[in-house]
Amino acid sequence: MAMPAEDIRPLAEAIRIVPDFPVEGISFRDITPLLADGRLFEMAIDRMTSPWKKGDIDRIVGIDARGFIFGGAVALELGAGFVPIRKKGKLPCGTHESEYDLEYGTNTIAVHTDAVLEGERVILVDDLLATGGTAAAALDLLERLGADIVESVFLIELSCLEGRERLEKRPHPVRSVILD
Amino acid sequence: MAMPAEDIRPLAEAIRIVPDFPVEGISFRDITPLLADGRLFEMAIDRMTSPWKKGDIDRIVGIDARGFIFGGAVALELGAGFVPIRKKGKLPCGTHESEYDLEYGTNTIAVHTDAVLEGERVILVDDLLATGGTAAAALDLLERLGADIVESVFLIELSCLEGRERLEKRPHPVRSVILD
Repeated sequence: MAMPAEDIRPLAEAIRIVPDFPVEGISFRDITPLLADGRLFEMAIDRMTSPWKKGDIDRIVGIDARGFIFGGAVALELGAGFVPIRKKGKLPCGTHESEYDLEYGTNTIAVHTDAVLEGERVILVDDLLATGGTAAAALDLLERLGADIVESVFLIELSCLEGRERLEKRPHPVRSVILD
Repeated sequence: MAMPAEDIRPLAEAIRIVPDFPVEGISFRDITPLLADGRLFEMAIDRMTSPWKKGDIDRIVGIDARGFIFGGAVALELGAGFVPIRKKGKLPCGTHESEYDLEYGTNTIAVHTDAVLEGERVILVDDLLATGGTAAAALDLLERLGADIVESVFLIELSCLEGRERLEKRPHPVRSVILD
């Protein structure tokens, strides 16, 4: 019998939990077994793009580095362009920057000032929604570009860290494939 | 009249040359205008995958970070799994590592030891073939995993830097979409 389309258990089961990485106390979600399986990767992209069809979205925005893996595939699937948000200093032309807090210190991400035109429909894509710090900084950059942010979509949401609460202070919907 | 499929000029013209980035004397190839245009991004992925059809390849291997954008899309297109090669310290489980020389100093990249099974057919994907140092180190990792390396494919090849000569010392073919 065919597996129901709604059944994301094979995706959830392909995520490997690695204790104490990168630092003690963190249970790292390793998505490499999911990525390595072409059938599961395709299923993940299908779920990320399911509300949309080709032509609905102008640009897919991915966050360096794992967000690029999903972002490139989602852009191809929807016939959209791809926009990278990168760590500061990696993009060669004029950028907007946004700083956010980490557990220790801060991080700064950047986007080209010509990456999105005002009013273009964009989706923010990343692999993981944890505390939402990175995603909030990315949305801040997209708002400064005047993007019409259709939604933010994540492969995994760690609901205990309440990233959704943080992002939903903004008017853009949040969607995740796997609730953890 | 439809543009001939062989015509890659629109791709080449969408690459922005940024002088003296990241350091003086380097002419950086900025691919963000190409990525941002859904039609051009799709054309690039079509060209990267043109010799192959779904099921021909087991895994697409992308190099952190821009190689992830193309690698994810190529994997989706070919129904293959995706394997990330990352900077040392980013992958959470057991890894093989390979060090290579930069203009100043060295860099180390890594792959999970369970990322590819012996004899699996893989393609290495990256955006740029320059001196070939990173790609050679990546091929070294894939050889250690016992992969059947079908080819290495790049969006842009800077032919004056002779990366192709370096890679073709190995038995795997090298292909690039745009010769610069």
